[in-house]
Amino acid sequence: MKAVVFDNELKFVEDYKKPEIKAGESLIKPTLLGICNTDEEITKGYMGYVGVLGHEFVGVVEESTDKNLIGKRVVGGINLGCKSCPECYQGLERHCKNRQTLGIYKKDGCFSEFFTLPNSNLLIVPDSVPDEVAVFIEPLAAAYEILEQIQIKPKDKVAILGDGKLGLSISAIFSNLNIDYVHIGKHDNKLEITRKFGGKTKLLSEIKENEFKTYDIVIEATGSVGGFETSLSLVRPRGILVLKSTIAAKEGLNLASVVIDEITVIGSRCGQFEPVLRLMEKGKINTKPLITKILPFDEAIKGFELNRSKETIKILLKP
Amino acid sequence: MKAVVFDNELKFVEDYKKPEIKAGESLIKPTLLGICNTDEEITKGYMGYVGVLGHEFVGVVEESTDKNLIGKRVVGGINLGCKSCPECYQGLERHCKNRQTLGIYKKDGCFSEFFTLPNSNLLIVPDSVPDEVAVFIEPLAAAYEILEQIQIKPKDKVAILGDGKLGLSISAIFSNLNIDYVHIGKHDNKLEITRKFGGKTKLLSEIKENEFKTYDIVIEATGSVGGFETSLSLVRPRGILVLKSTIAAKEGLNLASVVIDEITVIGSRCGQFEPVLRLMEKGKINTKPLITKILPFDEAIKGFELNRSKETIKILLKP
Repeated sequence: MKAVVFDNELKFVEDYKKPEIKAGESLIKPTLLGICNTDEEITKGYMGYVGVLGHEFVGVVEESTDKNLIGKRVVGGINLGCKSCPECYQGLERHCKNRQTLGIYKKDGCFSEFFTLPNSNLLIVPDSVPDEVAVFIEPLAAAYEILEQIQIKPKDKVAILGDGKLGLSISAIFSNLNIDYVHIGKHDNKLEITRKFGGKTKLLSEIKENEFKTYDIVIEATGSVGGFETSLSLVRPRGILVLKSTIAAKEGLNLASVVIDEITVIGSRCGQFEPVLRLMEKGKINTKPLITKILPFDEAIKGFELNRSKETIKILLKP
Repeated sequence: MKAVVFDNELKFVEDYKKPEIKAGESLIKPTLLGICNTDEEITKGYMGYVGVLGHEFVGVVEESTDKNLIGKRVVGGINLGCKSCPECYQGLERHCKNRQTLGIYKKDGCFSEFFTLPNSNLLIVPDSVPDEVAVFIEPLAAAYEILEQIQIKPKDKVAILGDGKLGLSISAIFSNLNIDYVHIGKHDNKLEITRKFGGKTKLLSEIKENEFKTYDIVIEATGSVGGFETSLSLVRPRGILVLKSTIAAKEGLNLASVVIDEITVIGSRCGQFEPVLRLMEKGKINTKPLITKILPFDEAIKGFELNRSKETIKILLKP
């Protein structure tokens, strides 16, 4: 079958072996796929991963050990836990030490004609939710994860820093939850999307000194060391800095202000799909402004190229 | 008057101007003083501070605008807030943006024959608490601050990393609170003090791979980037890393695991004195093993030299 593979180089192959389902699994034929920056990071060596790429999908169940799933349109959690450790018992498969992760760690991803997932990872997509919305469920769940981890109080002053995919996903969620946030970024054309969502925006260059140390909560979504430092400068003493992007700090990253101002820095990664699906079912999630281009699956390599452009938000692939 | 001054160099001066009290203040004559590593850091340029050093003291009130304080033996909070900002209204003078800090920022310290503090910063020391115990209240309050910030649950597995002043202060507090902790360090002679407190200890070299990612809470008290990285390796997914020491990270500090494992990193600094004073009054705090040497105040410069030795825990100065 056709597949997008990373094997020390990014390849589009025609003859990848079609996977077979095991006990408790489904075979899924994707109908729409999303390219994530993590896919790009993997092609630079992240996680040392080799195999089929991709973890953002909506698809139809072709085969399954659960007959009720066959023919259903589904989305699916990307972490496969061992089901027998303390983390898995708590429903935290995404923190299982022995987990596999779709297209990221020890498990072939979804950028292929068919792929498998455990039935317990799958959620049926309501008919009212189009593929172009459902395919965003994984990044939006990662945004919603923030609310699993911290309480955002009704009067909290919140900033989202970074106007890329990640920052816009968070904005798409926060705009639905009556959170008093300002989305700060460098690109007015991207911040325009947050304004479409009904959110407030500000260019980084517009930040004034009297805003320093005033935000109760700052969400770092830039992926850069500079963004982390700007976040630290914005958060108030004893405030919370949510770190959404994995950053490899360069020389001079100074955590002294974390101690002096007693900041809580909380890392945040994958989230659960159900709350996002509720918003999608109510028609509250508008993903149109996030879609830069939908390419045929066969043009996946071109999709990766486009994804590297600073102008790109989301590239989708249509099998 | 005699004073230990930092003015681009560390000096013992004989002719420093004696301070005068203002409205709401007391003049204090110290009876015992402690050298903190922050004093040493200031002599290397930390905070850009110039003036009388010192913030660890017990002393007697000589003059005061509050007659009830005169002649009383006192300890005192080291942060002087503006009393008119949101932080001060919450009792968080230690986070007031306009604060002065005794011997650290814009306020002459206690390493002199006399110094001043606001009356509202002072606590009277019960007669049963000797000077050699009371003088430790500030570093022990900084240790107790951890409990102001996070809940340590009865079954939590806790590690304190670092067996210097800071780690031992935390151990002195935790050993009184039935916390299931292990104190990890490089120096068995220092860890011996924790064992005297009744705590468990482990040499860093004894840590086995199966302990990685198993601690619910890790307290980083080494002051080194390596210690921060070891702490990250010990804390479990979704666990808490309390950062007690200000570290200026060097090249390669990688916060990716904070995100991947959704770690909460919480900075922790000064604390409140009352809970420590309660323990001291009950005779629960044994500071003898922490005292390396008590020197006459006139030998303060020698005290700073001794403080730089790796064998030193606490140097006290007796005026």
